[in-house]
Amino acid sequence: MTRAALLADLIACLGESNVLTGEDAAPYLTDWRRTVTGRALAVLRPGDSGEVARVVRLCAAAGVPVVPQGGNTGQVAAATPDASASAVVLSLARMNRVRAVDLDNDTITVEAGCVLQAVQEAARQAGRLFPLSLGAQGSCTIGGNLATNAGGTQVLRYGNARELALGLEVVTPQGEIWDGLRGLRKDNTGYDLRDLYIGSEGTLGVITAAVLKLFPLPRAQRTALIAVPGLPQALQLLQRARAGFGAGLTAFEVMSAACMRDVVQAFPLQRMPFADLPGDAWCALLEVSDSEDEQHAQERLEAVLAAALEEGEALDAAVSVSGAQSAAFWHLRESITLALAQARACVKHDISLPASRIPDFVQSTDAALAAAFPGVAMRVFGHLGDGNLHYNLLPPEGASQTDIQRLVHDRVHQAGGSISAEQGIGQRRVQDLQRYKSVVELDLMRRIKRALDPQGLMNPGKVLSADSDGVLP
Amino acid sequence: MTRAALLADLIACLGESNVLTGEDAAPYLTDWRRTVTGRALAVLRPGDSGEVARVVRLCAAAGVPVVPQGGNTGQVAAATPDASASAVVLSLARMNRVRAVDLDNDTITVEAGCVLQAVQEAARQAGRLFPLSLGAQGSCTIGGNLATNAGGTQVLRYGNARELALGLEVVTPQGEIWDGLRGLRKDNTGYDLRDLYIGSEGTLGVITAAVLKLFPLPRAQRTALIAVPGLPQALQLLQRARAGFGAGLTAFEVMSAACMRDVVQAFPLQRMPFADLPGDAWCALLEVSDSEDEQHAQERLEAVLAAALEEGEALDAAVSVSGAQSAAFWHLRESITLALAQARACVKHDISLPASRIPDFVQSTDAALAAAFPGVAMRVFGHLGDGNLHYNLLPPEGASQTDIQRLVHDRVHQAGGSISAEQGIGQRRVQDLQRYKSVVELDLMRRIKRALDPQGLMNPGKVLSADSDGVLP
Repeated sequence: MTRAALLADLIACLGESNVLTGEDAAPYLTDWRRTVTGRALAVLRPGDSGEVARVVRLCAAAGVPVVPQGGNTGQVAAATPDASASAVVLSLARMNRVRAVDLDNDTITVEAGCVLQAVQEAARQAGRLFPLSLGAQGSCTIGGNLATNAGGTQVLRYGNARELALGLEVVTPQGEIWDGLRGLRKDNTGYDLRDLYIGSEGTLGVITAAVLKLFPLPRAQRTALIAVPGLPQALQLLQRARAGFGAGLTAFEVMSAACMRDVVQAFPLQRMPFADLPGDAWCALLEVSDSEDEQHAQERLEAVLAAALEEGEALDAAVSVSGAQSAAFWHLRESITLALAQARACVKHDISLPASRIPDFVQSTDAALAAAFPGVAMRVFGHLGDGNLHYNLLPPEGASQTDIQRLVHDRVHQAGGSISAEQGIGQRRVQDLQRYKSVVELDLMRRIKRALDPQGLMNPGKVLSADSDGVLP
Repeated sequence: MTRAALLADLIACLGESNVLTGEDAAPYLTDWRRTVTGRALAVLRPGDSGEVARVVRLCAAAGVPVVPQGGNTGQVAAATPDASASAVVLSLARMNRVRAVDLDNDTITVEAGCVLQAVQEAARQAGRLFPLSLGAQGSCTIGGNLATNAGGTQVLRYGNARELALGLEVVTPQGEIWDGLRGLRKDNTGYDLRDLYIGSEGTLGVITAAVLKLFPLPRAQRTALIAVPGLPQALQLLQRARAGFGAGLTAFEVMSAACMRDVVQAFPLQRMPFADLPGDAWCALLEVSDSEDEQHAQERLEAVLAAALEEGEALDAAVSVSGAQSAAFWHLRESITLALAQARACVKHDISLPASRIPDFVQSTDAALAAAFPGVAMRVFGHLGDGNLHYNLLPPEGASQTDIQRLVHDRVHQAGGSISAEQGIGQRRVQDLQRYKSVVELDLMRRIKRALDPQGLMNPGKVLSADSDGVLP
């Protein structure tokens, strides 16, 4: 089939206004970090799952690759096509309906193109919490969140996107619809297809809808910003908080003093609650959610913090007394990325480790970097409660980003960690995956890819390298 | 290779005492419910993962099927070989070491043959909770729990076995060791192999070890037994408890008045806390875990129960004032299965539904059964908080068990439920899977099976039928 014939069929299926080419297609072809721009035969905007299935069938018949895309906010260019213009981009953005809310089952059924914040709001209007929460929530979509198994700030209590999904609807590479939209908390009938699709970044099929878990809204929340002498003490404080609050501990973030100073310098209206934080100190941001009331939350938090101050785990602590103050603490934390963006260059790593190994890892890797790249300055923060650090740094002039990342990732791998805790592989980290995964694991992944997508048409070149794993026409 | 030559090789690998035949093998060849007895070439008892890999390679080379077995406590004969004596049973029982406890990471690394109760105890000795909890915990193994994605009584708060595993070690059908023993809470580097193996009942590989999550021990626990007028009110009480306790609600079980009466009749020393429960009433068993103290737990529980009594959701309530009384309440619940065992016959269903559909389902299915099988008596109980009911019944004389199960399962399927909430498919429900799964889903499962186990040697005839999916030599 010629490309023109395929385009005509796609237009017949979706209507002319939903098959974009030329200028109209451009916004879909550059990744969020603006470092990769691809080309596409067309950008398709189906309106329902049946249309997704039909266009996938048309593309399969024509041997044309399909690149699924949600809000296009990913960090690893997983939703950007290559430069060959041989693929179509399949945008799920028009599929943004909330299909159902089931209060007695505590579930919400949404289409893939729903913006995360819209899902949060639909839940809140129903008197429930949908806890997935991350910086891009105003523009990322739930389909993309599931395809990449998004993390964010509430993972400690509620888990990653994976743990929040009960069921999926997926269009397979053959253009069949798998209806796995089950709102069940227990179901042991066969292989776990749901979790195979979650996190597979559109390389095994297209997630078109999901049944998600809802939770009771907390009755009260309190946030504390706590100065700690170092990471070992931050870890002790984390254990104390886990024991003291149980599942009431909904976030535990850390940021180095250097990150805090950058924020205050870049945004003078933001204030540090602590006057002089020692240069090697850290701040922990702790959030407690309470099923009773404000007073109970306050008392519990103060009891735990008093013990932490007494034991020397904490140097100082500030507790929010209002929602506005909580928001200000979170805003400090969330401003780090923006403050770092003003730096000349920043080399980023999204790593995870067993929490127990984090203090040693940071100390010894800081030292190794300082030895190999004199003048390097660390800017580390992250989700300590999940063992996930954004281990970022400002390199000295002339240092090779590749060499720096190699040093860091080699050490992460040696310590039993992950080189991509929450951002995925996409096209940016395909070579890293080849370097750090065992032969056995890569072979298992390839077997699955070939079994489900024997033509190699689903998002080729992402996760696994296209040359050895995809069969491009 | 002849069988004699294979046996010689296996003995050379494991030692004569770990290759059982004849009488020694017999205990491994009958399932827990004593309804299926198979035969085997031998029962193998490897001592470590390397030995598992070597014997799987030997069997693969000889084309001999492998049936993995843990504590042999499953309900669906998933660990019992067929009658052909062509397979080996691979018992993981000797692999029962706790490899590591990491307190700062809140993880424990155990071998597959560890008995569940031993894992719970190792956690408790380290000052932590491993929450998986079920009737067979004194003899089931963690490897079997993971292979079948076991549920139990704490799923409401802590999830199924799936949610408790961070990493796995697996021997593939090719006899390779996949080292996925990662103690990470976030790791988005490729396909989710872990969750594919969990719940696959040994048909895709052999789980040999796991990294499991640990939790803080609750500081206090309270249990309440609550009489409710019916299932709709039980559901309202569940919502009230979820909102009032948040994650402090660690169990919410229900049992019909008829089940309670059976228990008291079978075990006269057990007492109902309520004198006259109406015939159509239900009991809810509610457990609250508290991160503060006994008094706080008691006060919280009483506040929620007072509101439930006021609103008519509860008819009466008894709150445990001691661990012994908590245990007595749980013992009532756990005695139902034993009391039912004394009945002439009991037809069992392990079903799950969206919680919102449970009251209607039970009412209409009770009625349909009464119409089709006059004289049928219902004995329903289960984990309402997870939407999981043991929808059991005493059939009238002469009624066909197959017809009864067909009626119930057809209705479960129509209501969007699962015909096996926690027990799996094994060999007992293979035909049900063929009946109720869509063509698309069965095809996806077969593709995965063939991709990972092209020889069809891993636990053939379980989950998927051997005739169409396995390639027996």
